Amino acid sequence: MNELRHVARWGDPADAVTLSPGVRDLLGSALGVRGPRPAAEKADLHPASLPPAALADLVTACPRVHTDDATRLAHAAGKSTEDLLRLRAGQAHDAPDAVARPGSHDEVAALLAACARQHVAVVPFGGGTSVVGGLAARRDGFAGLLALDLGGLDRLIRVDPVSRTATAEAGLRAPQAERLLNAQGYTLGHFPQSFEYASLGGFAATRSSGQASAGYGRFDRMVVGLKAATPVGTVELGRAPESAAGPDLRQLLLGSEGVFGVITELTLRVRPNPAERHYTGWVFPDFVTGGDAVRSLAQDGPLPTVLRLSDEAETAINAATGSGPAADGGCLAVVGVEGTKGEVAARSEALHARLTALGGAPLGEAAGEHWRAGRYRAPYLRDALLDAGALAETLETATFWDRLPQTYAAVREALVTTLADAGTPPLVLCHISHVYDTGASLYFTVVAAQADDPVAQWRAAKTAAADAIAATGATITHHHGVGRDHRPWYGREIGPVGAAALRGVKEALDPYGILNPGILLP
Amino acid sequence: MNELRHVARWGDPADAVTLSPGVRDLLGSALGVRGPRPAAEKADLHPASLPPAALADLVTACPRVHTDDATRLAHAAGKSTEDLLRLRAGQAHDAPDAVARPGSHDEVAALLAACARQHVAVVPFGGGTSVVGGLAARRDGFAGLLALDLGGLDRLIRVDPVSRTATAEAGLRAPQAERLLNAQGYTLGHFPQSFEYASLGGFAATRSSGQASAGYGRFDRMVVGLKAATPVGTVELGRAPESAAGPDLRQLLLGSEGVFGVITELTLRVRPNPAERHYTGWVFPDFVTGGDAVRSLAQDGPLPTVLRLSDEAETAINAATGSGPAADGGCLAVVGVEGTKGEVAARSEALHARLTALGGAPLGEAAGEHWRAGRYRAPYLRDALLDAGALAETLETATFWDRLPQTYAAVREALVTTLADAGTPPLVLCHISHVYDTGASLYFTVVAAQADDPVAQWRAAKTAAADAIAATGATITHHHGVGRDHRPWYGREIGPVGAAALRGVKEALDPYGILNPGILLP
Repeated sequence: MNELRHVARWGDPADAVTLSPGVRDLLGSALGVRGPRPAAEKADLHPASLPPAALADLVTACPRVHTDDATRLAHAAGKSTEDLLRLRAGQAHDAPDAVARPGSHDEVAALLAACARQHVAVVPFGGGTSVVGGLAARRDGFAGLLALDLGGLDRLIRVDPVSRTATAEAGLRAPQAERLLNAQGYTLGHFPQSFEYASLGGFAATRSSGQASAGYGRFDRMVVGLKAATPVGTVELGRAPESAAGPDLRQLLLGSEGVFGVITELTLRVRPNPAERHYTGWVFPDFVTGGDAVRSLAQDGPLPTVLRLSDEAETAINAATGSGPAADGGCLAVVGVEGTKGEVAARSEALHARLTALGGAPLGEAAGEHWRAGRYRAPYLRDALLDAGALAETLETATFWDRLPQTYAAVREALVTTLADAGTPPLVLCHISHVYDTGASLYFTVVAAQADDPVAQWRAAKTAAADAIAATGATITHHHGVGRDHRPWYGREIGPVGAAALRGVKEALDPYGILNPGILLP
Repeated sequence: MNELRHVARWGDPADAVTLSPGVRDLLGSALGVRGPRPAAEKADLHPASLPPAALADLVTACPRVHTDDATRLAHAAGKSTEDLLRLRAGQAHDAPDAVARPGSHDEVAALLAACARQHVAVVPFGGGTSVVGGLAARRDGFAGLLALDLGGLDRLIRVDPVSRTATAEAGLRAPQAERLLNAQGYTLGHFPQSFEYASLGGFAATRSSGQASAGYGRFDRMVVGLKAATPVGTVELGRAPESAAGPDLRQLLLGSEGVFGVITELTLRVRPNPAERHYTGWVFPDFVTGGDAVRSLAQDGPLPTVLRLSDEAETAINAATGSGPAADGGCLAVVGVEGTKGEVAARSEALHARLTALGGAPLGEAAGEHWRAGRYRAPYLRDALLDAGALAETLETATFWDRLPQTYAAVREALVTTLADAGTPPLVLCHISHVYDTGASLYFTVVAAQADDPVAQWRAAKTAAADAIAATGATITHHHGVGRDHRPWYGREIGPVGAAALRGVKEALDPYGILNPGILLP
């Protein structure tokens, strides 16, 4: 069943990467990977169960409602390793009963009204790239589950060159948004790992952060205006970049993961498309020295556009597998600068002096470009690792600089201990992926041999890591979102009063509870 | 009655300024100001009406509860011109029945619990500097009104030099916060007009923005963590600078103006106290050229720490009255740079070149320092103008750059027309006070002769200006807040769905509705 192979991996199977013999050896000798696991030929898809009257009401709201198995399967899950493992095993229990493809805000609003009338649960679907179970809305207690695919809302509505803003429909995919903006001389500068498939609305609903966040900022900081359809009506927010008119309600929709409403339109700050890009690699003797250096840049500048620092393990493994430049110990940093020719020259020079003073040694442009060329490759590599019988997944967090070393140590320890205890000692790699003046994010990659039940194997490791994150006072997610998977820790993170506030908004905007049941809300 | 004279003006009467003969002439000849108005000797204060049982319950929660008239009067109003005019007329109807001075978060929480039990309304009181009726909570339907003065929560709890954060109690006043931080080498960099009296908690609750916001950012962007007491419990937020764990709930408390809870503690991003400050004046031929220049700096840099641009009228009047440097037409810009010696030298040089290229002519350091020396003087000048029989008030807004010219023209027109029609043609001055890459704020100052009912006179003008702000798509307030005065426009700005979201939070966190009734919520 071709559809199953397609949805059970990242991107198109035609883009698959092949593991080098070196990597295969490493998997076998160091991790004890036992080789490929059997994959299901066919998805176990429950019958579409929408009552005919409900379906008819939905079709009246939007004629493009699909109930065929292929379309349902394509909307059955996100792209977490757990999602992929389940799909590879043929499990597609979270598949919606139907998929609607509205073409306008009004059709979205009409669909929400119809779903409220028919008591149909709704899972908004952007790029489908969630890695936290963000598409696994609950169906129990509802007449059915509708995936609301926003792919038809894909227009760039206008660019305002004076205010440097762009207004676009929320279903517009990131690559197409960049192409359209580039044609007018602008860029969003938002390049997360999910870039190739994710949508603008998805970025907004999950508070995404891109690899160039040091220079361009997080996605939530780019949003100056938004429009959303909710079951109780439409809301439009953002009359100024900043305001003191009450709480910033834009921030209530940003990160709401579709539980309060469906974002249909965004007005985003754009920047001139940079004339020049200059990426270099740097090596620091260890993670502490390198960490102090990136903190210094984040706090006192000069701040590059991209700033990342791998720990010793990630640096060594990437070097050994060709995923990074050759390394003789130490920690690799990637330092990217974008802007006008003059800006790039001046900032690169200032960075060279500063990084050298902070204990770094330059590896040159090839090392930086190596990273840039492979920046979207990791999910394809994960597929190859899963194909080979390895377990591979990532998780991330953020906290303030003073707590970062404890969080780093505790999460590593939790992952190593849990997986070693299960008989599958892992490789745990980490990098500082995003920096702020007061703190930073940590991004962990874990590779181990798959156990007999790899989903349970990963859940145990992930639970231990999440507990360590919480215990050291860090946030359960810096940019992946909450979805279904992070809910228990999220509830503890915001506490009962925070949860009560969210429930208050939920009851006000979605009194029927149809939007993404089981997602986000503690 | 000494207390009345004290509360009916900004700051201490001992710091009062005297109008120059030139200003007095201008008031008389150009505006038709008729001279001082009679001032009441005694405040018309309703008797404190808290039932004894309620008072006893409050005193159990916090022993420092005061019901004397002087303390009540000192908490009766904010510092809008309307507030001052009413107080000068002896009207203190909004005075609370009692004033509590808790000394800790736990006492604040205990007071809220007691007020919920006793059905006593609560108005949180920080620096008392609201200019939008933010202290005029409604008492009707309640057993009484308690002012919750946070002045006793004034500790700097800790400074984290690694994360560059400071944690402080919310009642700490801005000047003391700066003194304590400066002693450790840091600054908040938050210097709004209200600086001399305002509290950190007030800044947070109203999303304040300081005069150095171009360099240090708005106050809401400085808050990385907060603690608040609500009638349903305590909430603590902020485990990282940024997170994707749901909506940023810090932003739900920031700007909430005390209607959801009482902010008791803040963790704030701090910066090294600058070694050097370099403020210069610049003149542009007109407001359009100057506006394009400050937009260019905001969008493409170099960005100074302080950036302001007066329109032709403000430039001319300030020159004529000695409030600004001598001007031969044109528009004055103030450009301030703060940082290390090296940074200030480099940025000042870059700014000089860029501003010259953008059509500016340098007026030198004296013009910049003139502004800096007088930066907190405006409210004292307003008192002197009110004393002399003039009406003087300010209002502000913000919007995107492309709409800014329409908003500017429409607000000016509304103010001039309304006051001229009332027989009191005004002076209307304006400056761009805060800049962002996608937009800016406009700050208007209005001076006219007082009519027989100056409160009604100003209300009519303010209503017309607010309608013009709304009609041109701008926000009703960039940094003053909503309070009581902006509620009608605020409701229209966020729409019924936005208002429903706020009401949902209100019902969840303050089910008894005791917090600031009549404030903020549409």
